Amino acid sequence: MMIALFTDFGLHGPYTGQMKAVLHQMAPGVPVIDLFADAPTGNPRASAYLLAAYGTWFAAGTVFLCVVDPGVGGARPGIILKADGCWYVGPGNGLFELVERRAGSTRSFEIDWKPERLSASFHGRDLFAPVAATLARGDPPRGRPLSGKTHRRADWPDDLCEIVYVDHFGNAMTGLRASVLAQNTRLAAAGRVLDRAGTFSDRPAGSAFWYENANGLAEIAVNQGRADRELGLAIGSPIEIVR
Amino acid sequence: MMIALFTDFGLHGPYTGQMKAVLHQMAPGVPVIDLFADAPTGNPRASAYLLAAYGTWFAAGTVFLCVVDPGVGGARPGIILKADGCWYVGPGNGLFELVERRAGSTRSFEIDWKPERLSASFHGRDLFAPVAATLARGDPPRGRPLSGKTHRRADWPDDLCEIVYVDHFGNAMTGLRASVLAQNTRLAAAGRVLDRAGTFSDRPAGSAFWYENANGLAEIAVNQGRADRELGLAIGSPIEIVR
Amino acid sequence: MMIALFTDFGLHGPYTGQMKAVLHQMAPGVPVIDLFADAPTGNPRASAYLLAAYGTWFAAGTVFLCVVDPGVGGARPGIILKADGCWYVGPGNGLFELVERRAGSTRSFEIDWKPERLSASFHGRDLFAPVAATLARGDPPRGRPLSGKTHRRADWPDDLCEIVYVDHFGNAMTGLRASVLAQNTRLAAAGRVLDRAGTFSDRPAGSAFWYENANGLAEIAVNQGRADRELGLAIGSPIEIVR
Repeated sequence: MMIALFTDFGLHGPYTGQMKAVLHQMAPGVPVIDLFADAPTGNPRASAYLLAAYGTWFAAGTVFLCVVDPGVGGARPGIILKADGCWYVGPGNGLFELVERRAGSTRSFEIDWKPERLSASFHGRDLFAPVAATLARGDPPRGRPLSGKTHRRADWPDDLCEIVYVDHFGNAMTGLRASVLAQNTRLAAAGRVLDRAGTFSDRPAGSAFWYENANGLAEIAVNQGRADRELGLAIGSPIEIVR
Repeated sequence: MMIALFTDFGLHGPYTGQMKAVLHQMAPGVPVIDLFADAPTGNPRASAYLLAAYGTWFAAGTVFLCVVDPGVGGARPGIILKADGCWYVGPGNGLFELVERRAGSTRSFEIDWKPERLSASFHGRDLFAPVAATLARGDPPRGRPLSGKTHRRADWPDDLCEIVYVDHFGNAMTGLRASVLAQNTRLAAAGRVLDRAGTFSDRPAGSAFWYENANGLAEIAVNQGRADRELGLAIGSPIEIVR
Repeated sequence: MMIALFTDFGLHGPYTGQMKAVLHQMAPGVPVIDLFADAPTGNPRASAYLLAAYGTWFAAGTVFLCVVDPGVGGARPGIILKADGCWYVGPGNGLFELVERRAGSTRSFEIDWKPERLSASFHGRDLFAPVAATLARGDPPRGRPLSGKTHRRADWPDDLCEIVYVDHFGNAMTGLRASVLAQNTRLAAAGRVLDRAGTFSDRPAGSAFWYENANGLAEIAVNQGRADRELGLAIGSPIEIVR
């Protein structure tokens, strides 16, 4: 049992800490892991491909507390999704679309519990964290089954031809699963065509390539360099599949 | 029971980790939360308004370990404050002034315990963390009651007309409690006059406004934008109340 | 018992979180501390001096999980080092050279355990974290004793005349232990000659100096300023000892 956080809050500032305070108070003893605190800011679409790639690595029973929520305080519902034995709690803005689409078995709920005090701008702390904590304790979901599909985003592609994350080393993750690409696939990014490599040490220093990262995403890298700066890549940069 | 950290250390580097090592060793099993690791650097005055706004959100019994301490190694005393059932431990440089001024009941102590090894530059690890850990274990405060007011800052205002924090989204928190401002108050910042909004989704994309944030501070924001860059705001920028 | 992380991953992104997920799953209840998440990127040599200075501060029994591993996926071995009662787990690329050289008693092992799934690019998660977790549980090391010295770096100096870390305040740590420097030693950096001070408050605002930091390293600082910007220092900048 574990709670994993997936947000666009940044680790600095009070937001992650206040959510953790709620979790420790309501689900004492359950470890809380920072998975991403810097998911694509205000961008549930790019975040959805990142979450789907990393969520499946965790053991069944994990509760994901997910907040990429530019519409907080507006009309979007709060959602609980059970997918292949893990729970996902967060805004119903498409953030769980790819997890739900790729899972073998799913059930989804609209949160109908109301906290005593609900701020207009911080549902992560006031609504989603208490709901996640109760799931981590083994309580039933605080919501009613969703029958319709209004929270789904059927129009989003199965894989996203965009950069969805740039890490501390300057490596640029795409929203493409390497498993859907033929072995000899080349990717075009920022006017460059990149071959596939097995790993960093396969390539001479300074050369750009793509490879399957440790969570199955196609990732663009430069051995002993920064792909983001050398190729001019950022979250949202388009990628093209070259065959 | 919980220990919350409020520092200007940054999360990177060894400082927060070493303090947590002391806390886990001396108060095993007590959860430790990062509230702010990026309080205004070397600025106990701005930090004091931020701490007062966020501290009251926590449950009674919380121990706040607070280090914004530009005078470390100099003459300022070490302080323990009990305020409305919570403990605050840190330097006596005004950092607790607003917590103490606004609390219903307070007791304050000057730390008189001396560690075996006290570095000149890291009292957070060597002095304040052990004192906080013993309070979290339920031991009496390692200090003697303060009778005088030498650690107080009576000259600081009740609310601070300055930016005291800029978050990951570019939102700029002021040192002003929204509760002391009339509903139709406008705030002037960087030559702009800003109306109050209920929350982000009330406003068109790109428009600047102020609103009461989830911890009661007046905060300046731009819907789907960054207030810090668009208005040129940083910690210390002055704010004016326009009626 | 405690696990301390020493990596160049950055705190953002999924890497530290995934390692912690492995640790919490395999060694439940053992506290995990972030010591450095921003060790010199891809630079095991500078990192080795930093690790040696900070590792000795921790209590015997601590397990250090260390990943500064530019050669991941290549030929370098995985290493377990026991040094003065603490365990160090990570790549055999010199990262433990100074810990091993300075310790009173050491034993070293080459990891011979193979995980079921080993990614090419993330041995921190797939190999080193499970090995560290088993040591934290008290299990014997998953490796065979190293007889040779192929993992050693006898050519590296005992102290490094370079900047090895710049902290959140702009203070620049050198790879020099203050204990090997005479009291009146001056250090030259970026064309400036700096005197030694006891601590920050000894010096007028704006003046640059060096002092012994809380972990015994010679550190260059500017009182109420940023040494990195004012002197133009970064990781790798050379330092000279002036007598």
